[in-house]
Amino acid sequence: MSTKITGIAASDGIGIAKAYTLVDPDLSFEKKTVTDPQAEIDRLAAARKITVSELEEIKAKALENLGPKEAEVFDAHLAMVNDPDFIKQVEDEITQKSCNAETAQQDVADQFSAMLEAMTDNAYMQERAADVRDVTKRVLSHLLNRPLPNLALVNSPVVVVSHDLTPSDTAQLDRQFVKGILVDLGGRTSHSAIMSRTLEIPAVVGTEKATATVQDGQTVILDGLHGVALAEPDDAELADYQKQAADFAEEKAVWEQLKDQPTVSKDGQSFMLAANIGTPADLPAVLKSGAEGIGLFRSEFLYMDSDQLPSEETQFKAYKAAVEQMDGKPVVIRTMDIGGDKDLPYMKLPKEMNPFLGYRAIRISLKRQDIFRTQLRALIRASAFGDLGIMFPMIATLEELRQAKTIFNEEKTKLVEAGVKVGEKIKLGMMIEIPNAAIFADHFAKEVDFFSIGTNDLIQYTFAADRGNERVSYLYQPYHPSLLGLINHVIKAAHRHGTSVAMCGEMAGDQTAVPLLMGMGLDEFSMSATSVLKTRNLMKHLDASTLTDLAEAAINDCESSDQVKALVEKLKTSQA
Amino acid sequence: MSTKITGIAASDGIGIAKAYTLVDPDLSFEKKTVTDPQAEIDRLAAARKITVSELEEIKAKALENLGPKEAEVFDAHLAMVNDPDFIKQVEDEITQKSCNAETAQQDVADQFSAMLEAMTDNAYMQERAADVRDVTKRVLSHLLNRPLPNLALVNSPVVVVSHDLTPSDTAQLDRQFVKGILVDLGGRTSHSAIMSRTLEIPAVVGTEKATATVQDGQTVILDGLHGVALAEPDDAELADYQKQAADFAEEKAVWEQLKDQPTVSKDGQSFMLAANIGTPADLPAVLKSGAEGIGLFRSEFLYMDSDQLPSEETQFKAYKAAVEQMDGKPVVIRTMDIGGDKDLPYMKLPKEMNPFLGYRAIRISLKRQDIFRTQLRALIRASAFGDLGIMFPMIATLEELRQAKTIFNEEKTKLVEAGVKVGEKIKLGMMIEIPNAAIFADHFAKEVDFFSIGTNDLIQYTFAADRGNERVSYLYQPYHPSLLGLINHVIKAAHRHGTSVAMCGEMAGDQTAVPLLMGMGLDEFSMSATSVLKTRNLMKHLDASTLTDLAEAAINDCESSDQVKALVEKLKTSQA
Repeated sequence: MSTKITGIAASDGIGIAKAYTLVDPDLSFEKKTVTDPQAEIDRLAAARKITVSELEEIKAKALENLGPKEAEVFDAHLAMVNDPDFIKQVEDEITQKSCNAETAQQDVADQFSAMLEAMTDNAYMQERAADVRDVTKRVLSHLLNRPLPNLALVNSPVVVVSHDLTPSDTAQLDRQFVKGILVDLGGRTSHSAIMSRTLEIPAVVGTEKATATVQDGQTVILDGLHGVALAEPDDAELADYQKQAADFAEEKAVWEQLKDQPTVSKDGQSFMLAANIGTPADLPAVLKSGAEGIGLFRSEFLYMDSDQLPSEETQFKAYKAAVEQMDGKPVVIRTMDIGGDKDLPYMKLPKEMNPFLGYRAIRISLKRQDIFRTQLRALIRASAFGDLGIMFPMIATLEELRQAKTIFNEEKTKLVEAGVKVGEKIKLGMMIEIPNAAIFADHFAKEVDFFSIGTNDLIQYTFAADRGNERVSYLYQPYHPSLLGLINHVIKAAHRHGTSVAMCGEMAGDQTAVPLLMGMGLDEFSMSATSVLKTRNLMKHLDASTLTDLAEAAINDCESSDQVKALVEKLKTSQA
Repeated sequence: MSTKITGIAASDGIGIAKAYTLVDPDLSFEKKTVTDPQAEIDRLAAARKITVSELEEIKAKALENLGPKEAEVFDAHLAMVNDPDFIKQVEDEITQKSCNAETAQQDVADQFSAMLEAMTDNAYMQERAADVRDVTKRVLSHLLNRPLPNLALVNSPVVVVSHDLTPSDTAQLDRQFVKGILVDLGGRTSHSAIMSRTLEIPAVVGTEKATATVQDGQTVILDGLHGVALAEPDDAELADYQKQAADFAEEKAVWEQLKDQPTVSKDGQSFMLAANIGTPADLPAVLKSGAEGIGLFRSEFLYMDSDQLPSEETQFKAYKAAVEQMDGKPVVIRTMDIGGDKDLPYMKLPKEMNPFLGYRAIRISLKRQDIFRTQLRALIRASAFGDLGIMFPMIATLEELRQAKTIFNEEKTKLVEAGVKVGEKIKLGMMIEIPNAAIFADHFAKEVDFFSIGTNDLIQYTFAADRGNERVSYLYQPYHPSLLGLINHVIKAAHRHGTSVAMCGEMAGDQTAVPLLMGMGLDEFSMSATSVLKTRNLMKHLDASTLTDLAEAAINDCESSDQVKALVEKLKTSQA
């Protein structure tokens, strides 16, 4: 009989393949005295050779999937394996102490990394200590013949089973082979969940026990539609899920036909569907997705993929490329939202007790105007090449918004006076993600061209619950009547002043939330590129004229998220 | 000419005295080889002797001001100074190595504390490492004749100048001698600010540069009314401030006359003034203050002043004592609000990235029902002895409130069935401190007897700004029109359902906020005992009938905190 694992449905689809468990093997070894030191030196040379070819393979994959910057780390690893000083010291240790290769490699690595870590005034050398440890782990794995799992080396269909997936793990996922992702940690808005949706790989997260339950090589059915996985399924289960997978593929094919269609409800009301992106590398997927624009271009990648502040020129090129590739479709770029969970080592941001309630986003921009003005100049210059909107994150008060706008206007005037070409009408907007901004929306609406509601943060502040903290994840309640009321208030306040309202949080692509948001009159829904067609399909089957009543009933007559959910399900069933 | 230092006015009043700088002296020393080891052993014995008498003095003071539990730490220190093993090892080191006393003391202390810290499975022994270091610091200070500053030893009038004040510092403040507090860190709701108000010592906090500017022994004028301090004032300044201090004392004497008066506005409208307390030790001050009840009794002290969970009996006695001492006046006790910034080592709470958005208060109580039921039983039993209300902290959803009420009812039924006497009508209430609770107030109001608005947390979540983080303290905006609108919404929602509304955050005693809150119809104002009479005096001079318009103008016509403040000042001046 199969073993069932339940978790959170994080990315749609069904995948069936052998488990590839991303768990490090036991690399412990015995210290031994040897009689033939030269044999140990030779074993080590052989292990280094395999390590080098393995690292070269990983590096090539990283170069292909991620670009030169990310591949560089493997150059550092390769240099480390081949370091003549290091090799000489290990070989001397073997000869002098007659110890086995494992012991010598580990001892010398410990000395090297301790020495590097002691260089407290040299961050670069300190980071090299991690390289020494990584490389030694890899060499030991070959000495002991217990290979490390490595996503870059996967070359047949698998379901990846892991405790968590880091950004560098997901960067190495090959969509051709990875049929599913099953992880212990995370919720719907965790990195692994967001990335699996971007890559269109079915995923179940937050299972707590996937790695403890599934063994490497077992067959796994991964059901990302319902948040379930089955290990070692029987024939009936396999047949059932193969049918479900085929049905889902068929459904996706139907969505595919909507690619170049407008977004309209059954009764002909129009909505706009846009995509959220994190780097220009996401643009091809957006162009394929049928999105009508980019509702959120996070500019953080420019600051995080670098070891210094990005220059105006670097930024200008990235923004220009984005608006040009979108070919006249609107692109909204958010000014940097660093701080919070996004640290920049080179900026030496203060360690904070509650970073989500701390010095981040516009709060940094208004204090570090040098950085902010550089970014604004790059954005204003890029506006000459397409339809570009700028939005400010984490605005809480009118004073902050006005200060940001004043700085923008100063930089724009300077550029115009210097004869630089700028866009005729650059739209300015702000994120609504702090409760005070939502409540005070009437005042803000008079001073911006558009709002974009950031539901991930808005929900976490409204319920005072960190969305990354599993112990309070039950308080992440996008369907709560009062949160819906707050969103409705924002939309109505904006419309009173002719301001348009987008939403760029996870909620905008949530199939339960969408009918409610349509009913409130939300203008633009910005989501993962992979959710666009599914949402267009949903909208096409809904009668928009009935949704105002639905939203009002949810806000006024319900007292819990569960009641709202039931209300929406009932309506969706009746209109299906 | 005097040097002016500006900061945040944290506690009313004017103090003039010599500066007592609470900054550790330089205790570095040279390693020396000595020719007469016995002389070093004698020097050390002498230093130990002074250390012992100093520790005994500090201990006596702690016993007097704080009680036996807090004095215990000094017993540990005394045991450490007199530890024969330790002494023998230091003396052996001097004899064997012919080193000076400082070197031997430090070396042996380093070994001892390293050994203790290595006991990772024994938290008690690990904590002793800190004792070893503390005691060694004290012994070194006498060897080097550079005494450590110590608040317990102050015996003449001083203004304490410090980087920050820890709870153990404030515990040693003697109100007889400490005329003012001037610190680098903190805001109006920091520990040092709250404690200085409780102790009625004028204070200015958040100066950033007090310790860098003021030298020990300089004369300092501390103006806690305006948030200013002057170091080395000239004669004219001294005369001016002496007059101001006299005027303030006169004003306080006027307030004193209101002690047994009811709280009524100029036009005869009644309000209720209550006090917030942290431990039963605060009760005498409350009884003196003229407060009409206790609006917030924080129960955390029972959990924090202990190395294990407090028993039902311990809690029962504390709660009973409180209601009995208040002699029929209402006492509202809040169930435990641990987690967040209040850690309990013995509960092994998880380390969290954003503790203020984490697992705390009712979220812990509903999960750890064993702890919650014990507390509720103690509270229900104590309700037989006076007017006791129970309130739940950090409620965000109806489900949480209903679950807490169900558990309360279950425990109450069990006690009644067992024949235990309980209060006839125990009032149940909840804190409004999470934005969602405020927005959803209409639904909550139907299910509780009272609300208590916790503005410190409500403000920090509404603005997404940690109130302890100085970089974002500009966002702690109690007068912001939309925050006032939210509070007004809570009050109106409560009154629609016959539910009363108290406020127990700092804002309830804030002299700018009070007229606005009166205008909104807030029923009960609960504050530091020291603010009660001042607030009663303020209310007496205000025409309540004009304040509804004031509140409405603040909420509807203002767009910033500064505008609201100006509006209130204008009205106060016109009615003064």
